[in-house]
Amino acid sequence: MRNRNPHPWRWIISTGLIILLFCGALFASGDGGGSGGHHNPFARVFEAFFIILLLALVGRYLANKTKQSAVLGELLMGIIAGGLLYMQDNPIITIIRNFDIIEEVGRLVTQKEYSYITAVDDILAESTLKPDVQTKLRELFIRPDLEEFLIISNSINFISSLGVILLLFMVGLEISISDMKKSGKNSIIVAILGIILPFAMGYGCTLILLPDLSHSSHVFIAATLCATSIGITARVFKDLGKIQIPEAKVVLGAAVIDDVLGLIILAVVTGMVSSGNVQISDILIILIKAVVFFGLLLWFGSALLKRSVQLFAKFDRSHVKLIYPFALLMICSYLADLIGLATIVGAFAAGLIIREEAFQLKGIKGFQNNETVEHILAPLEGVFAPVFFVVMGLQVDTSILFTKEVLVTGGVLTLVAILGKWLASVTMPKRLNKHIIGIGMVPRGEVGLIFAGIGRGLGVLDNELFAAVILVVLLTTLVTPPALSKMLRSYESKEPLKDQ
Amino acid sequence: MRNRNPHPWRWIISTGLIILLFCGALFASGDGGGSGGHHNPFARVFEAFFIILLLALVGRYLANKTKQSAVLGELLMGIIAGGLLYMQDNPIITIIRNFDIIEEVGRLVTQKEYSYITAVDDILAESTLKPDVQTKLRELFIRPDLEEFLIISNSINFISSLGVILLLFMVGLEISISDMKKSGKNSIIVAILGIILPFAMGYGCTLILLPDLSHSSHVFIAATLCATSIGITARVFKDLGKIQIPEAKVVLGAAVIDDVLGLIILAVVTGMVSSGNVQISDILIILIKAVVFFGLLLWFGSALLKRSVQLFAKFDRSHVKLIYPFALLMICSYLADLIGLATIVGAFAAGLIIREEAFQLKGIKGFQNNETVEHILAPLEGVFAPVFFVVMGLQVDTSILFTKEVLVTGGVLTLVAILGKWLASVTMPKRLNKHIIGIGMVPRGEVGLIFAGIGRGLGVLDNELFAAVILVVLLTTLVTPPALSKMLRSYESKEPLKDQ
Repeated sequence: MRNRNPHPWRWIISTGLIILLFCGALFASGDGGGSGGHHNPFARVFEAFFIILLLALVGRYLANKTKQSAVLGELLMGIIAGGLLYMQDNPIITIIRNFDIIEEVGRLVTQKEYSYITAVDDILAESTLKPDVQTKLRELFIRPDLEEFLIISNSINFISSLGVILLLFMVGLEISISDMKKSGKNSIIVAILGIILPFAMGYGCTLILLPDLSHSSHVFIAATLCATSIGITARVFKDLGKIQIPEAKVVLGAAVIDDVLGLIILAVVTGMVSSGNVQISDILIILIKAVVFFGLLLWFGSALLKRSVQLFAKFDRSHVKLIYPFALLMICSYLADLIGLATIVGAFAAGLIIREEAFQLKGIKGFQNNETVEHILAPLEGVFAPVFFVVMGLQVDTSILFTKEVLVTGGVLTLVAILGKWLASVTMPKRLNKHIIGIGMVPRGEVGLIFAGIGRGLGVLDNELFAAVILVVLLTTLVTPPALSKMLRSYESKEPLKDQ
Repeated sequence: MRNRNPHPWRWIISTGLIILLFCGALFASGDGGGSGGHHNPFARVFEAFFIILLLALVGRYLANKTKQSAVLGELLMGIIAGGLLYMQDNPIITIIRNFDIIEEVGRLVTQKEYSYITAVDDILAESTLKPDVQTKLRELFIRPDLEEFLIISNSINFISSLGVILLLFMVGLEISISDMKKSGKNSIIVAILGIILPFAMGYGCTLILLPDLSHSSHVFIAATLCATSIGITARVFKDLGKIQIPEAKVVLGAAVIDDVLGLIILAVVTGMVSSGNVQISDILIILIKAVVFFGLLLWFGSALLKRSVQLFAKFDRSHVKLIYPFALLMICSYLADLIGLATIVGAFAAGLIIREEAFQLKGIKGFQNNETVEHILAPLEGVFAPVFFVVMGLQVDTSILFTKEVLVTGGVLTLVAILGKWLASVTMPKRLNKHIIGIGMVPRGEVGLIFAGIGRGLGVLDNELFAAVILVVLLTTLVTPPALSKMLRSYESKEPLKDQ
């Protein structure tokens, strides 16, 4: 406190280190405890929530100081903290990183009359996990406080899921349906090319690079390259106040379409791997579901929104602007999952449905009478959304990334992943900035992670391939925010926006 | 829609029924599904969250129409929905109501090399649960989708826990420390008498009514009658805008002290039951912990709050008013649990610490520059707090309440519970309304439920006693809001408040 203006880098490094050490100590302190007494397991979740918020805070600060996007800082802080905690044998990190195994063990324990230890032996016998990870998992399942850690990990995952749907909801809120229709054609072109090109290039690349692999593995890796994570890109656009530019709308529209198409591809590829062949009718059913879902919701938005808000206001006038949108977000996310789409697709649709005009009711009293829905829900997003990015960072297994094989495969696939999406934007009209659109489609983010996890579960991705795919997800996700930020900053200088 | 102003009761009953049926169908619809495919388990949590928000909405509406407190409506809707769903064999309700058994089974599965089915047989062999509950639990543990339901139930419990700490935090925010000091003496008197009287009366009553019980059971039942639930009372005061009256401060201060004292009593009684004797040093340690905790936090609040807010603002100026208070809430709740107090005690302390003046920093930009911390965090409380009350209702087992034995024991104990707290207020000075203070201390709420659950776990409460204690919790909790509302309304007419 003596020197009030030290060199900014000293500030960054020293505060970063102090908080990291503090967090590490706090997170680790819980390691041994918790087994005795009547402690509330959620108290540990509150602790983790606190630490994650601090990590996100430091990440945002460092990103801001180095002129990067906040999401990059949050992700990297998650990766660093995850690496440190994993080395300390933190059971929460082991659970978060091996959630698929934990789920499989849980399923085996309930389906057959197995004990945890028998089940984990059964699962690990068939897995290709590294010996030290297997040891950690075995040690995990003989912990007397395992149940508590499962509760904590589930809750952290839940907070993260709530964060990502709140984020997508807010993105949907900021985009109007009429705007979506305007950039609809371009979004469709980018989305479809952005799937075909990475798939074809990825397939060819794995054929040459890894000829010994099975056909299923080739197809699955290629499919993983098709994913687009709307979350990362949306956050960058939002952070820089550029969510309203036409390029952002093309990218976000395309990312939503890609999400739907990606899930169709996932369903198709999973079907292929499981049964050996795939029926065209399955593909059609998923496609019809998606169209009907969006169609019904958007019809509801235009026809019934105002009336349902009025009905809702009869029940509770003072909370209508808070509870109605939040409840809509919940039910749309659920319905999307119910018909086989991702919850985030439903959350985005819920955001699209909400129009501020529908909430302009006479005589609404209460604590938020003159505020917009977006403003009222912003604190919820502000608290929960950073958790998603930090937890995504925590899930990245740093120890597996630094072998030569993984680095080469991952590096080549990353180039293919970037090029494929970038090339998808060449057909865009001249008035749009192609590079912004191309780069905006690059991050695989959580969609890529979901693909990778399922691939590992199906046995088509072994340890090295899984690590390589994780590297693709990591690099495409890391590369996008700074590249996109740079482009958006120069975009601003060319054509300044009126609402900046 | 034809008749725009039907009789209010028709409105109430018809809309209530429609939404109840809708909710029942929705909740039940999930029953059979979820086992196939790669569904996101949290999607089901979002569904449950949606239904709980609707139940709370209808509950608030009905309470409002019948001039009752909102919390009573939310509680009753939870009880009704829980009863209906339990009859439908909803696994989530079975898990929520038998969380202690589920936890014990989980512990046994990890500690010994048991399968779920062996573990559940072991636990149920020693339990005195009704045969139909035992059957439901056995059926639960052979469900192939058990794991998913455990995740859903955990997440609902987590949302509820987050709700109650947000509620207590907001209560703390509205009370200033200097005000607490003013009513401190009266709070301490009410708190101590409110523990001694119900304990003595309850002990004597069980000696006469149930002479065959063990000494431990007598002591435990008496201890359960000492609990005070600050949540219910705080909500009633808040709903009626009376949180600032001196009586509210006495009650809330006394409830906080009771929470601490109640935990000491719980620790003492649990120790007595487990080992047969209790050491005075254990009581002293818990007492010292509580004093040191509050002392340190309040010292932090007066000495370091402003400086730490300024440090925080260096990292993220635009979110300081949102993230700082929320992070403080998380860490204080955790720390309270860590030293053996309830998380809600920490949450209340966190609210006490926050002073708006500390957040008056120069040049704070962002979406909430001119708003108070209370206003910014209100949406979080608005979404999560109702979940706590509905879930409390869901936990009440309606089927066990209607035997003659339970009704008589429960009824007598309820009278003792009400009289004991009411009599504790006789020593209050004349300027305070004794009845408001007495009634305000009556609800046992979640604290009573925690006591009851632990008592069942320790084996000192058998099925009937447990049901009777639940009845006490239920009746004291149900009776308080209307009684307190009535008193507060007449209070208003005698001495109208300036800030109404």
